Amino acid sequence: MLNFRSDMKVELVDSWGSDEMIARAARVSTNKDSVTQGKIDGLIRYLMRYRHTSPFEHVGATFRLEVPLFVRDQIVRHRTFSYNIRSFRFGEADPEFYVPDEFRHLYNAGSGAHPHLVADHPDGRPLYSTTKEEFMHVARFTWNSYVLMLEFGIAEEVARGVLPTNLYTSMYMTGNVWNWLQFFDKRVSSEGNKPQYEVELVALKALNSLRGQFPVSVKEWEKS
Amino acid sequence: MLNFRSDMKVELVDSWGSDEMIARAARVSTNKDSVTQGKIDGLIRYLMRYRHTSPFEHVGATFRLEVPLFVRDQIVRHRTFSYNIRSFRFGEADPEFYVPDEFRHLYNAGSGAHPHLVADHPDGRPLYSTTKEEFMHVARFTWNSYVLMLEFGIAEEVARGVLPTNLYTSMYMTGNVWNWLQFFDKRVSSEGNKPQYEVELVALKALNSLRGQFPVSVKEWEKS
Amino acid sequence: MLNFRSDMKVELVDSWGSDEMIARAARVSTNKDSVTQGKIDGLIRYLMRYRHTSPFEHVGATFRLEVPLFVRDQIVRHRTFSYNIRSFRFGEADPEFYVPDEFRHLYNAGSGAHPHLVADHPDGRPLYSTTKEEFMHVARFTWNSYVLMLEFGIAEEVARGVLPTNLYTSMYMTGNVWNWLQFFDKRVSSEGNKPQYEVELVALKALNSLRGQFPVSVKEWEKS
Amino acid sequence: MLNFRSDMKVELVDSWGSDEMIARAARVSTNKDSVTQGKIDGLIRYLMRYRHTSPFEHVGATFRLEVPLFVRDQIVRHRTFSYNIRSFRFGEADPEFYVPDEFRHLYNAGSGAHPHLVADHPDGRPLYSTTKEEFMHVARFTWNSYVLMLEFGIAEEVARGVLPTNLYTSMYMTGNVWNWLQFFDKRVSSEGNKPQYEVELVALKALNSLRGQFPVSVKEWEKS
Repeated sequence: MLNFRSDMKVELVDSWGSDEMIARAARVSTNKDSVTQGKIDGLIRYLMRYRHTSPFEHVGATFRLEVPLFVRDQIVRHRTFSYNIRSFRFGEADPEFYVPDEFRHLYNAGSGAHPHLVADHPDGRPLYSTTKEEFMHVARFTWNSYVLMLEFGIAEEVARGVLPTNLYTSMYMTGNVWNWLQFFDKRVSSEGNKPQYEVELVALKALNSLRGQFPVSVKEWEKS
Repeated sequence: MLNFRSDMKVELVDSWGSDEMIARAARVSTNKDSVTQGKIDGLIRYLMRYRHTSPFEHVGATFRLEVPLFVRDQIVRHRTFSYNIRSFRFGEADPEFYVPDEFRHLYNAGSGAHPHLVADHPDGRPLYSTTKEEFMHVARFTWNSYVLMLEFGIAEEVARGVLPTNLYTSMYMTGNVWNWLQFFDKRVSSEGNKPQYEVELVALKALNSLRGQFPVSVKEWEKS
Repeated sequence: MLNFRSDMKVELVDSWGSDEMIARAARVSTNKDSVTQGKIDGLIRYLMRYRHTSPFEHVGATFRLEVPLFVRDQIVRHRTFSYNIRSFRFGEADPEFYVPDEFRHLYNAGSGAHPHLVADHPDGRPLYSTTKEEFMHVARFTWNSYVLMLEFGIAEEVARGVLPTNLYTSMYMTGNVWNWLQFFDKRVSSEGNKPQYEVELVALKALNSLRGQFPVSVKEWEKS
Repeated sequence: MLNFRSDMKVELVDSWGSDEMIARAARVSTNKDSVTQGKIDGLIRYLMRYRHTSPFEHVGATFRLEVPLFVRDQIVRHRTFSYNIRSFRFGEADPEFYVPDEFRHLYNAGSGAHPHLVADHPDGRPLYSTTKEEFMHVARFTWNSYVLMLEFGIAEEVARGVLPTNLYTSMYMTGNVWNWLQFFDKRVSSEGNKPQYEVELVALKALNSLRGQFPVSVKEWEKS
């Protein structure tokens, strides 16, 4: 009855504009909004290097996500996006829970403030099976409590207090290309930037989708 | 050589989404993102009445404007939009100036803080011809000074200091539908809201363009 | 060892400006930034009625909150505020959990989309004791699992996935007065606006604190 | 009767918070909001290096500016600030105009898109006296036209169309420290960043004021 997932669903719903539109918007400043194909690359490289960010704001994309609550929490901290999120106040939850898959590093070889996650425990402890077992135990226990309260007559908005943060939710997320590039700045690994694994999965999927629509912008962002 | 205009150019460049997309985004909160055509109207009416504004943020539109500087100044006070604006720092101006047309009310029968513009002066003075004459005199005088300074070798970014605020500029302006509806709230006349004539011209043109793309949303906004 | 709480802690950390500052900022538009005490009330009433909101943005307040995760989630949807929030990625959680108190209505006599919470179950079922018992059971079970995983060597950022949304967190929240008034618009009960009980507790505490610092603004907001 | 100025007035009206408050907000993430004086420097250096920007949003400052319209135009493009600006729609202008002083470089030795302003014309032309003369001629001519229209009965909101962009205006400008640091990023000269002279004057004055209130943050921003 309970459903366990390890994936992050990141579905492109809509996108608008193009690299050419970015270039045209940039060129209004010198009153030459038409732009030849050959000039787009150089212009976007220039905009990216000197952080002339406003032209990237005229184009954008909407995604529909299915992610655990703890991933949603990190995502909504990016305040320049628009969100609509499934509510567990106005409707019942579904019994769908996240469990890490085998590729998820589970041991913190760094410190609290500077986590450095690695695959294996120094003593060879079975981290993966223990995590999976605990996540499944807790999902069953909390879900039973949630259902019991609902059946007893307790309101959804109260009963949800017992649900764990690995519960899945769904949401729409819309932003312009500059919003998305800043999201990738924070949520794709780089030197000195260590996002949480599950959030990076979301970022990488969105990045791949945007590469199709805005190939020059994504390429120049990756170089910079 | 000088060009005088009275129009506000408001050209739809792109729009994305639809009333249906707004409805789908709204329904993710109760986990039913599909929506039948017949339900869109009622749902959007409900969202508008209770100011559930986030679903309107997933859809939007870009316009290209040609307006005088004093109109641009009022527009850019709306900070949730994205702009790219012609720069007179990085390029020379063109000699294009606004003059009011005959429909523009020129006499303030109200007070300073609460202007109430009417067509005729109480003494029957020729307001229109005087305004037109002064605007044209000033345009010629200031343009000559600007050109003289440029030819003398003074930088564009300095010489533009003499150009009047009725000079035309061009710009791209992008916002989501909620941004646009709030713009119309402030810049379309209503009881207790008296926008400047020229800015209202811009707002009404944008409103008409959006009515084509988002007919239900615009209709419900007008009713509310 | 586990700590159960029913309160929302809302502590004023700092505030800046005053009703007089709001009035001065408003009057710069007519170039008269000085303002006599007697005129402040009328001016703020006028600003509130005609939604001239920018003067309220120059003054504001910071609070420190201690609230359950499900309350934090609703708060951070207000994107114009600034937040710093306790992370359970970079540090261990404390075993502090929310349980409803006796004043919390637990039965939904409305529908899912339009909850109307009342105190008593139609059949007289003991809602309060059942809720309390379930919340305490779940807190103990999930906390044990969390501690077990940490002791086994599993990273905090993973182990927190089993913690329920009634866990307490702490945060700083800063906004200008207009941000706060919009927050109260949504999170204080009114006709057609039914916020969740726990979030309204936060809003009412913040409102009371702001009344001390900005008495005219809060009074005029309450009237409007 | 006409007043000519070359200065940018940048007056600190209010500021709130401190470097210590920034550090406390940062440390809520690890649940240790108290902070010893000795740790503030290191913590702020760390936040600046890794672009952890949210703690800088809880503290800020308000300034009152007197600047020409063309400077105001560049300032209000920074959309995260709050502004109240003198209106020439709801009140008459004062005859106060900007003229460059002798320190203002007037010759563009670069290109249009990449201006590089230097003091002297290659042929030794008297750039300064010519600019001053033209600015003063235009100020007198346009002011006479403006006054004539007002006296004839034409509304302020129309007549202002002839006023040049070197007219002075006044405004309140409020932002948090992170807003201000981003403003300085763009408006203080650095390699690859050439702001207009007059806007940089504003930025440098604001920067000096903030150094008094947030010495560690400003010092670390300057290093980064």
